[in-house]
Amino acid sequence: MSYNVERLKVNYKTLEEFKKFKEYGVQELSMLEDLQENIIEDNCDSPFYGIYFGDKLVARMSLYERNAKYDLYFDPPQNFLELWKLEVLPEYQFKGYGKKLVEFAKSFGAPIKTNSRMKSKEFWEKMGFQTVTYDMERDLGQNPLIWHPDGVKEQKTNS
Amino acid sequence: MSYNVERLKVNYKTLEEFKKFKEYGVQELSMLEDLQENIIEDNCDSPFYGIYFGDKLVARMSLYERNAKYDLYFDPPQNFLELWKLEVLPEYQFKGYGKKLVEFAKSFGAPIKTNSRMKSKEFWEKMGFQTVTYDMERDLGQNPLIWHPDGVKEQKTNS
Repeated sequence: MSYNVERLKVNYKTLEEFKKFKEYGVQELSMLEDLQENIIEDNCDSPFYGIYFGDKLVARMSLYERNAKYDLYFDPPQNFLELWKLEVLPEYQFKGYGKKLVEFAKSFGAPIKTNSRMKSKEFWEKMGFQTVTYDMERDLGQNPLIWHPDGVKEQKTNS
Repeated sequence: MSYNVERLKVNYKTLEEFKKFKEYGVQELSMLEDLQENIIEDNCDSPFYGIYFGDKLVARMSLYERNAKYDLYFDPPQNFLELWKLEVLPEYQFKGYGKKLVEFAKSFGAPIKTNSRMKSKEFWEKMGFQTVTYDMERDLGQNPLIWHPDGVKEQKTNS
């Protein structure tokens, strides 16, 4: 079975499918409101990428390019991708969908930073990500992991 | 039954109790390593506060004062408390422990910012917290909620 990663369009169908994902939050609610109030157009590009099985969205992630001036993770500071809300619906897990999405994110050739749930740490490490040295001032409640196309060079923190 | 909020000490007993909480992560692992390598002292203060039932830790939160220069939420920018990992063990939920911890955080008299799980939104709203207007550049995968002792004045974002 072949499947492709697609950039998701903002429309009522996509936003309805998002409700099936555990990490449905303020971001999705805000997109829905913007659509209802015509602040954003129907079918405009979203920061989400996903995989469809037939016409059902079964996996997704959000991806956003951040400027080097916000980079607190890589040495030297550089433009990087922030990846969040990587999630595969329960009945579609362990079939390679998550891996496919992360490989897609890597294909942009930029360093990536994500925040993992502890249970998924093993998955991220298999994907070549590395846990950073925890810094409370910077990381607070996060569990940050980073990946770099040329191998990770982690930024030193002050603490 | 009376119970008190205590500032938690970093020691092997506390760190063992932390393992029972779902949001055990890099922060706790890092504290454990620092203790093992004598980088931090046994029984020094941690950023965690908790409630004991007998000698068992049943609820906790992390609390950290951030400088106004990091404030992207309140208007005008000001020193505020970041609250994370508020969690009550399953068999002790719905007994007021979470409320007690949040009231303790409020007692410092500073504005508070937290990041909620969507399912806990109702709890936070009951505690007087308000969902911020989502801004992707700032909030990424977070669901931020804020509280201010004098009523919230939310910082305007650029987007």
